[in-house]
Amino acid sequence: MTEETNGLETKVENMTTKNLEEDVVNPWEVASSSDKGVDYDKLIKRFGSSKVDEELIKRIENVTGKPAHHFLKRGVFFSQRDMHQILNLVEQKKPFYLYTGRGPSSEAMHLGHLIPFIFTKWLQEAFDVPLVVQLTDDEKFLWKDLTLEEANRLSFENAKDIIALGFDVEKTFIFSDLEYIAQSPAFYKNMLRTQKLVTYNQVKGIFGFDDSTCIGKISFPSIQAAPSFSSSFPQIFNNKTNIPCLIPCAIDQDPYFRMTRDVAPRLGYLKPALMHSTFFPALQGAQTKMSASDPNSSIFLTDTDKQIKTKINKYAFSGGGTTVEEHKEKGGNCDVDVSYQYLTFFLEDDNRLEEIRKTYTSGELLTGYLKKELIEILQKIVGEHRQRRSQLTDDIVKQFMTPRKLKFDY
Amino acid sequence: MTEETNGLETKVENMTTKNLEEDVVNPWEVASSSDKGVDYDKLIKRFGSSKVDEELIKRIENVTGKPAHHFLKRGVFFSQRDMHQILNLVEQKKPFYLYTGRGPSSEAMHLGHLIPFIFTKWLQEAFDVPLVVQLTDDEKFLWKDLTLEEANRLSFENAKDIIALGFDVEKTFIFSDLEYIAQSPAFYKNMLRTQKLVTYNQVKGIFGFDDSTCIGKISFPSIQAAPSFSSSFPQIFNNKTNIPCLIPCAIDQDPYFRMTRDVAPRLGYLKPALMHSTFFPALQGAQTKMSASDPNSSIFLTDTDKQIKTKINKYAFSGGGTTVEEHKEKGGNCDVDVSYQYLTFFLEDDNRLEEIRKTYTSGELLTGYLKKELIEILQKIVGEHRQRRSQLTDDIVKQFMTPRKLKFDY
Repeated sequence: MTEETNGLETKVENMTTKNLEEDVVNPWEVASSSDKGVDYDKLIKRFGSSKVDEELIKRIENVTGKPAHHFLKRGVFFSQRDMHQILNLVEQKKPFYLYTGRGPSSEAMHLGHLIPFIFTKWLQEAFDVPLVVQLTDDEKFLWKDLTLEEANRLSFENAKDIIALGFDVEKTFIFSDLEYIAQSPAFYKNMLRTQKLVTYNQVKGIFGFDDSTCIGKISFPSIQAAPSFSSSFPQIFNNKTNIPCLIPCAIDQDPYFRMTRDVAPRLGYLKPALMHSTFFPALQGAQTKMSASDPNSSIFLTDTDKQIKTKINKYAFSGGGTTVEEHKEKGGNCDVDVSYQYLTFFLEDDNRLEEIRKTYTSGELLTGYLKKELIEILQKIVGEHRQRRSQLTDDIVKQFMTPRKLKFDY
Repeated sequence: MTEETNGLETKVENMTTKNLEEDVVNPWEVASSSDKGVDYDKLIKRFGSSKVDEELIKRIENVTGKPAHHFLKRGVFFSQRDMHQILNLVEQKKPFYLYTGRGPSSEAMHLGHLIPFIFTKWLQEAFDVPLVVQLTDDEKFLWKDLTLEEANRLSFENAKDIIALGFDVEKTFIFSDLEYIAQSPAFYKNMLRTQKLVTYNQVKGIFGFDDSTCIGKISFPSIQAAPSFSSSFPQIFNNKTNIPCLIPCAIDQDPYFRMTRDVAPRLGYLKPALMHSTFFPALQGAQTKMSASDPNSSIFLTDTDKQIKTKINKYAFSGGGTTVEEHKEKGGNCDVDVSYQYLTFFLEDDNRLEEIRKTYTSGELLTGYLKKELIEILQKIVGEHRQRRSQLTDDIVKQFMTPRKLKFDY
């Protein structure tokens, strides 16, 4: 789940070949009807979610006693469901847990894959709550030309990248579906309970399946639903059921959780709350998100300093003028400039970002300088990540992936 | 699976309300287009299976060195797939294993439920091979108004009835899906492999699912397929894959295994061989089989001697004359007489059965005497079963249901 899911590598083609009346956003396809990319405000209306507004951000700051993460202030996490209910619970000292995930379709994760995890880590620390991370290797087997063994191996590799972000082992459980479903009767039972309540007609409507879809894909949504219910993890949560759940994820995963929220009350379970992120743009443009299958569309966590420099300089779509003269005269366009977009994700200093925005828009700051600043930031982030990842032993990964009670009192 | 599966209780109604052009036989519905019940010869043609003929029966006797079971000689197990291949293997001293199962929808099993297990036990002893028995409590949860807990409890109760038939604990593994799937990565992997190769279109065609079918039912066939592959049971078969499998079951389960046989070669697995039984008739008539939900349609393994006597006398459809005079004049009709049919299942003495057939047909033997003989036989069978079942401890049941290497060398 989250971010890079099946079929995403075809997104760019979809965008150029289709004449869409509205944006297409589902776990396997993201295609915009406009050059400017997905219209997120329209998406909120269509999906029936709520905007992450100033009031909510203030409330999060008040309740946690911490300044809001820049992903909140800059509209990266722009949409939500039931966040006020989560905050009400926190004010009443009632606990919740976080659930996010990833479909391990490639060995190397890219920057876009990190977004939900970076924010999830902030949420975990700000609210001091446990986290479960689902690696849907079964999904990747079903959708991709991968063997089960390869999908499972990729889970383990991806778990390393997630762990390298610095999650607390005492409060984080990372699991591969292929391993955990075959270890946990409670998880399988919640899959079945969901499968009993959802018809083919419903998944056809929600996910766009058709009659030639394999039956594994048809029942898969129940597997992504199950971690939304704390009863799926009796060991992790010490047999406590109905602990509220908050899911940070990219907006393309919302269909899974609309289905989950529809089913939850009929199972006697709480609906999970959600926070949705925008897509992390591909180097080629802000209309779409990165793809793991095109090495030149993404900065990978395994890229060297040199590769990062080359990719940004060569591929990052520029909103600047075609010549220095033109740029100085007309200024740069931050709305379409990929390097600027990346800075909004990775440059934490608000003042510096605003300065860059102003001087680039006025034409004072040249594209080369903008890219240089981004390259340095990315080289630092990716370099440190590579360093932390290299220090991880298999034992540490296994610790994270062992079902056990997490350090938290309910 | 086998025998009494979902929706079977509606079979009698189906038969009276539908005007069928051909017999309907699938795991959830058995309905005949004729008063005489299902036309099994036509079914063999439609399903593309082979008849259990004299030649096969002789070969089984030669290979096992044992006289054929009366279910073979009397056409109860009337249809098969690839049985000659199984016999070829046995002649080459290459081993196979048996797989059968049951959907635990009711606490009390009835006589009809025993048929596949009685024959399976004979096969196990005649060929000296291991056996896996699947209890599809997950299926019953999906199809019936049962909780998972209740379905799982019924598995355990039904396991007792199966064990009471006298299976060898060292060569028999009985498992509940709800328990085993959550214990066995290998089993879940084979489920997924099958799910990837079967489309909604295919299960719609094979099982008659429609768009309002829940997604659990749609993917369930992969769960009944998995035990056909020895790699689903690494502990049981000491990690040996591609041990040939023979499935004795009622013919209504064949759709599952047609699908399985279609998928097997694409997975690099052997197709399971099959032996199919006819349906055990309800007391009310030979057109259909018993139903666990109508107590007066069946003899249950929990029935007392008195209940057995009353049910046979009161409900067993008679092919005799309406008066003694008419019976003596016109004779009885064994083809529709349920008591006679039951004798073909449970009276092992061929000579005595033939004598009854002759004298009943001629009108010499009255219905009352026929029923009396049947009542005595059933009281003995059910009484002894009740006795053996009452001696079973939970520990013995748990022994059968523990994944472990079976006593067999491959």
